[in-house]
Amino acid sequence: MIIIGERLNATKKKVGEAIRSRHAAFIQQEARAQAAAGAHYLDCNAGRDPASEKQDMAWLIQTVRQATDLPLAIDSADPEVQRAGLEVYQGLPPILNSATAESGKMEAVLDLAREHNACLVALALGDAGMPKVEGDREANIQRIIEAAAERGIAPQRIFADPVVEAVSTGLERPLGRLLLSAIRNIRQAHPCVHISAGISNVSFGLPNRRLLNRTLLALAMGAGLDAAILDPCDEHMMATLHAAEALLGVDEACANYIAASREGKLEV
Amino acid sequence: MIIIGERLNATKKKVGEAIRSRHAAFIQQEARAQAAAGAHYLDCNAGRDPASEKQDMAWLIQTVRQATDLPLAIDSADPEVQRAGLEVYQGLPPILNSATAESGKMEAVLDLAREHNACLVALALGDAGMPKVEGDREANIQRIIEAAAERGIAPQRIFADPVVEAVSTGLERPLGRLLLSAIRNIRQAHPCVHISAGISNVSFGLPNRRLLNRTLLALAMGAGLDAAILDPCDEHMMATLHAAEALLGVDEACANYIAASREGKLEV
Repeated sequence: MIIIGERLNATKKKVGEAIRSRHAAFIQQEARAQAAAGAHYLDCNAGRDPASEKQDMAWLIQTVRQATDLPLAIDSADPEVQRAGLEVYQGLPPILNSATAESGKMEAVLDLAREHNACLVALALGDAGMPKVEGDREANIQRIIEAAAERGIAPQRIFADPVVEAVSTGLERPLGRLLLSAIRNIRQAHPCVHISAGISNVSFGLPNRRLLNRTLLALAMGAGLDAAILDPCDEHMMATLHAAEALLGVDEACANYIAASREGKLEV
Repeated sequence: MIIIGERLNATKKKVGEAIRSRHAAFIQQEARAQAAAGAHYLDCNAGRDPASEKQDMAWLIQTVRQATDLPLAIDSADPEVQRAGLEVYQGLPPILNSATAESGKMEAVLDLAREHNACLVALALGDAGMPKVEGDREANIQRIIEAAAERGIAPQRIFADPVVEAVSTGLERPLGRLLLSAIRNIRQAHPCVHISAGISNVSFGLPNRRLLNRTLLALAMGAGLDAAILDPCDEHMMATLHAAEALLGVDEACANYIAASREGKLEV
């Protein structure tokens, strides 16, 4: 599993405040904690105020880079903010988070990704907004993958994200089942793309959120997920991740599982 | 999910000793604890000594019946022990655990099930023993379902069990993936059968067994499992079960999940 640390997100109160006040030490501590917990990428979202998001993103990217060499995910819905992040970015190829299938916008983000040699989250939103019925997620992602291929962006550099909705809002639709079948369908149609998801969205509005989050992680891994945006500092989540990898045979001879156990990481 | 409590199994040292010494109070306490924790059936396995297994099973069934009205699963590989259990059994239709696809033996168990109006675990073992390659599990279960149908046993009364092997023994085969694909294939081919599994077998020989067990439960539920032989007194396991039901949309409006949270059952 490719772990994209989710903690540096301006919609979290403390992080938004640290970005506003340019509190570099707090941001860098969050970055180091996620790196130590096993993140492979750190997501960076500076979206607290549209008027300053470009400057905020540039500051965030440079501030995080001083704390860790991990590659970063530049997280904004606005291509101009993505560009501001990319222009100050240094290091291993970043992830642009995200391109959607929205006409016009999609093309701008794909051009940016090509220009800066970036990987790309392909988020299953289309011109009609959120995916609604079975097949919407797959169709939106198909559209982005095809447009990326036309620009020479290989499937190995794409992280297809089927959009995780809050299960509490899906009273009339089995949201979890739609999500899992989308992951299975994308995995079958596109064996070389990564499939990623923003796990913790699922539990919005419900109690015991971390229990739902880690249970969704296992379910999604069983369907074919091989990357996730999550909190690597959540030890229960990481224990579930290790267990699922052992069960699914991606952790050969359960070697990582046994090592994690010896390090006391599974005693949660 | 249909929960079949696994704790009354003579291969567990304390339970075997209680059966040998006819320690009814201990057995009945285990029965009541599992009923209180949410079991729908209680598995009863008296297999500590082949010479006395028939008498042991009869005593076990009668002893458990004095503690709870829950239907029981009569668990033995020997049709004569199953018969001994059925002959003293009273109450809601029991489960015979199990019939395998082994020639000769299969027919004897199916006849017993029909004669006593019992449900049936259809275990994916065949004449060649343990399932080895992809498709073995499905073929063995298909054979049992067809033979049951010939005897008028409806698919709704069958619990297909794909055989959970220890993942630690599967160093050269992705055992978990074989198991999950078998569950998906059985669910697709036989929409009306229950699919059950002995969850805790998976973790034999590995550390932090309960973590692996509950993670497998989530993965298997995602693939189509709707019943499980497990320890209902494992609060982490039951919390995962509630979360997976909420995510998979079988818990409408997450009502059970929210109720379990209010009762403090998810704070694990």
